Amino acid sequence: MEKSVFNYSIGPSSIDFTGRISVSSMFDVILGAAGEDAHSRGFGVEALAKNNYGWVLSRICFELDYLPREYSDFTIYTWISDYNRLSSTRNFELVDAEGREFGRAVSQWCMIDFDTRMPADMNTMAKAHEGNMVDAPSPCERPRRLAAVEGEPLLQHRVAYSDIDFNRHMNTMRYIDIIFDSMPIEVPENLQALRMDINFMRESRYGDNLSLYCEERDAVRNYEYRNAAGEALCRASLELK
Amino acid sequence: MEKSVFNYSIGPSSIDFTGRISVSSMFDVILGAAGEDAHSRGFGVEALAKNNYGWVLSRICFELDYLPREYSDFTIYTWISDYNRLSSTRNFELVDAEGREFGRAVSQWCMIDFDTRMPADMNTMAKAHEGNMVDAPSPCERPRRLAAVEGEPLLQHRVAYSDIDFNRHMNTMRYIDIIFDSMPIEVPENLQALRMDINFMRESRYGDNLSLYCEERDAVRNYEYRNAAGEALCRASLELK
Repeated sequence: MEKSVFNYSIGPSSIDFTGRISVSSMFDVILGAAGEDAHSRGFGVEALAKNNYGWVLSRICFELDYLPREYSDFTIYTWISDYNRLSSTRNFELVDAEGREFGRAVSQWCMIDFDTRMPADMNTMAKAHEGNMVDAPSPCERPRRLAAVEGEPLLQHRVAYSDIDFNRHMNTMRYIDIIFDSMPIEVPENLQALRMDINFMRESRYGDNLSLYCEERDAVRNYEYRNAAGEALCRASLELK
Repeated sequence: MEKSVFNYSIGPSSIDFTGRISVSSMFDVILGAAGEDAHSRGFGVEALAKNNYGWVLSRICFELDYLPREYSDFTIYTWISDYNRLSSTRNFELVDAEGREFGRAVSQWCMIDFDTRMPADMNTMAKAHEGNMVDAPSPCERPRRLAAVEGEPLLQHRVAYSDIDFNRHMNTMRYIDIIFDSMPIEVPENLQALRMDINFMRESRYGDNLSLYCEERDAVRNYEYRNAAGEALCRASLELK
């Protein structure tokens, strides 16, 4: 089995004010490759929907050595390296037009049984997995388990129309955008290399009032979204390099 | 001279929770076609930049008979029909995969001299225009001049990182998104045919505190964004059909 290959060109709607792809758009491109690959290998959202199962992204990390500019081309290689009863690991390598690897990502996915709202045993999809594993290690340290973040909320956000996806949950890109909105503009302006880890814990629904907490520890910015009940929904850590 | 033709397919990042393209994404696609066509005909942003001129969208209207679903294909025909000293008129027809026209738009553009921050005389670009006019009328009523909106502000919005474009001005898509964010969710949910007119008056800059005003008159929702100084920045009217 070979890694799957997807080619991209960075269009005007993916860039931020620096003229480079935004971190949230890069994240969207990576997830898009995951969705397309799962679909073409027969275990995409539509295939799982027949059993009323669905994929849920539980953790992801990505490392970018630089943010490519508008109209530049790059290639994503993606593959599943392994799975256990509870989660499946999908990897990504990003290679620029000069053939240099400039980014990598590792994502962990659970299968949810929508009837019970509980994780489904990944072995029920063993057949789909079997022919589709690639014997290549993850290209970087796997997504970290992030600790609780204390302190005072940086900002409040009410989940609105333009934040939600098909399931009326907050779109994962918006979690990243709002984190960048909370920073001094000089941070995205001067951004070079970075590593970001994200843990998705609970979904944010339309109308939810979110609070974003932030703590800086050892040059790492740690974020946590909580709902009005104080439950942690999503944690992220951003390490600038 | 013939109309220019662009083909699109609606990807996952353009849809809203209804599974159909969002109004702001459709607007983005229309502006993207304008930019590409101007570029390929030699009077795009880059060509004007040599004189330190730039295009500024002053008014646009669009009519959609329905909002196409994810993965559906459509074609945009675009052409400039006429220009005068102050503005150039670009038209759009949207045709679905069955060959039905399902949308149309008319946009009016000024040229700005960045040295003086004043409108430039369009005749200075006469040469670029001359070979590129198409003798076909606008496909619908041209963008209306919108009146001031009174009343109390619906919401406040501080222009943030994820709102701004290359010039650090609020992206035009975000004006539309925030208008939809302010509505009951049932409005985008039940949206069928619509006409939207937008007048761009002043730019919103990073960090500006915007207030959004709304008035309903005769089944038309009229919106106005103002900055902290009370200046009108952008007006929009939305007519549901």
